[in-house]
Amino acid sequence: MSAIAIAGSRFIIVGGASLVGSATAAELLDAGAREVVLFDNFSLGSDAAIAHLKDHPRLRLVRGDVLRMPDLLDAMRGMDGALLLAAYMTLNMDRDAWGGLDVNIRGVQQALEAARATGVKKVVFASSNAVYGYGPGVKGDLVEETPFFSAGAPPAAILYGASKIIGEQLCRHYKRKHGLDYVVLRYSTVYGERQHYRAANALYIIETYDKVKRGERPQVFGDGSETKHFVYVGDLARANRMAFESAATDVAVNTSGPRPMTTLELVRMVTKLAGGGVEPDFVGEEPGKVRLTSGGAFRIAHEEAERVIGWKPQVEMEEGLARLIAWKEGNEGRGQ
Amino acid sequence: MSAIAIAGSRFIIVGGASLVGSATAAELLDAGAREVVLFDNFSLGSDAAIAHLKDHPRLRLVRGDVLRMPDLLDAMRGMDGALLLAAYMTLNMDRDAWGGLDVNIRGVQQALEAARATGVKKVVFASSNAVYGYGPGVKGDLVEETPFFSAGAPPAAILYGASKIIGEQLCRHYKRKHGLDYVVLRYSTVYGERQHYRAANALYIIETYDKVKRGERPQVFGDGSETKHFVYVGDLARANRMAFESAATDVAVNTSGPRPMTTLELVRMVTKLAGGGVEPDFVGEEPGKVRLTSGGAFRIAHEEAERVIGWKPQVEMEEGLARLIAWKEGNEGRGQ
Repeated sequence: MSAIAIAGSRFIIVGGASLVGSATAAELLDAGAREVVLFDNFSLGSDAAIAHLKDHPRLRLVRGDVLRMPDLLDAMRGMDGALLLAAYMTLNMDRDAWGGLDVNIRGVQQALEAARATGVKKVVFASSNAVYGYGPGVKGDLVEETPFFSAGAPPAAILYGASKIIGEQLCRHYKRKHGLDYVVLRYSTVYGERQHYRAANALYIIETYDKVKRGERPQVFGDGSETKHFVYVGDLARANRMAFESAATDVAVNTSGPRPMTTLELVRMVTKLAGGGVEPDFVGEEPGKVRLTSGGAFRIAHEEAERVIGWKPQVEMEEGLARLIAWKEGNEGRGQ
Repeated sequence: MSAIAIAGSRFIIVGGASLVGSATAAELLDAGAREVVLFDNFSLGSDAAIAHLKDHPRLRLVRGDVLRMPDLLDAMRGMDGALLLAAYMTLNMDRDAWGGLDVNIRGVQQALEAARATGVKKVVFASSNAVYGYGPGVKGDLVEETPFFSAGAPPAAILYGASKIIGEQLCRHYKRKHGLDYVVLRYSTVYGERQHYRAANALYIIETYDKVKRGERPQVFGDGSETKHFVYVGDLARANRMAFESAATDVAVNTSGPRPMTTLELVRMVTKLAGGGVEPDFVGEEPGKVRLTSGGAFRIAHEEAERVIGWKPQVEMEEGLARLIAWKEGNEGRGQ
């Protein structure tokens, strides 16, 4: 039986001091979780991401490392569910491929092994739409069977996508070999309150907003027709909860926002929220940057997630961006 | 300058006590290499694979492990070229995913780092047509830009393919970050003298031959229309040599045999070589086995290899199988 009632259960969030980790912790605590453990080594995670939660009586913070098996074994003992978030994304993978492969592959191996050894009932693994890859092949509806396109993409982006493919398959492997139940959620690009500055696409929102606030014109690379398909962090927190609650196991589904948009639409939306009044500046390709986006128009289909765990996204981009910006404005005065 | 004249140069073959390793060592020695080092931990490699070479005056055997950085650094010092063969294939990946990811990912990281640190001029990395994946998506001409299909494939097969994708990208990463020249060769299924028993597809040749020799009917799974695209080991040894000799760098090409064939054609060919006289037994899907082959008809295109390193396959399957079987018959009496 792989369904976990949230109320009265204990959860560990590996890589918990993060955007998705803190939102999911709040979601699980609100649903009556007996305990939520945020496990993080704070190399990428931050105190700021969890400042609003850290005095919660049912939340426990554990400083630990996914590369240290004793840390994982100690922290997972007694847990009902484990959410595996700890990962390098592409920008960090480019800077430090060794560290990224360690965390994204060895870290997942160890977390799954620790979950198995300590009797965790269900794992939710945070995968990514990066498993569909990059470049002109990525177009139309991206469904769960879409292959991984990589021709011409930067090494770090392919390493990231392939590391997520491996993480997913390690989950399947542990299910087959050891019966460990799991759900893989393929997150699209996450944004929302407590946004960090490590993800190229989400960073673009913040950079655009800051430019407009300074009275500068925001930059659009290429002709602005490139697709972005974000998902609001609160929607993902709900998806994580529902993945634990549902009886589903041994399955991978996309969790994307209500709809994709073009870069130009996104920039216009952020410009409006920042006060408007400026037109975007269409520039060429950004030199020397790791490019992460596809040339084609695509949509990350999330219908399968509704069928499998009953989830669909609720927060439209306008609303989610407004929340992100309200949080950003509210926090800057506090020096975070 | 990434072209290496074989005559007078020194080469290390990591994972050298193997089918491809021993054939490539002979190829390089015949071309006048000053020294060839076979580096192997003998966990998968075997003395039998290199018995015919081991007294060669310009060959040196080093017992070492790709997971031990000091072993690699010691062995690579002074080498001009490094051929990276050490890998688990799918059957071993299924038995021991941890070991497989260690060797296929960490092992490649370490070998590349050791090559960089010791000033190796060029690396040839043995990748695989497994980077195109499995299942019904794999059809038609598989060219170097073909994506990775994995829906429905067994975890171990996907782990293997994804580990090869990562190995290739690590080569690209080391080229970009450190200028280390490399050529990736995507081998199709290798067969030939000194055939080992670890690769599912090549194993099928041996099993079929042995059945017919015992007077039994060879088994064909499904309707026999599944594609196989093998490459003869001597052709691959030549491809490895030519990859070192060519000025090509920062590129990945397919190295497959002259043409694909169906399983039924293969079985008829092996049956004939074994003395013939029996008809294949068409059975259903093989229960409980890791399935590695595609449902569709495909051809692994090798035209790019000719353009890039001047290589094309020379040995037709009939000829290569005859050599494999002559070797097998000649060796069984010697207890190898």
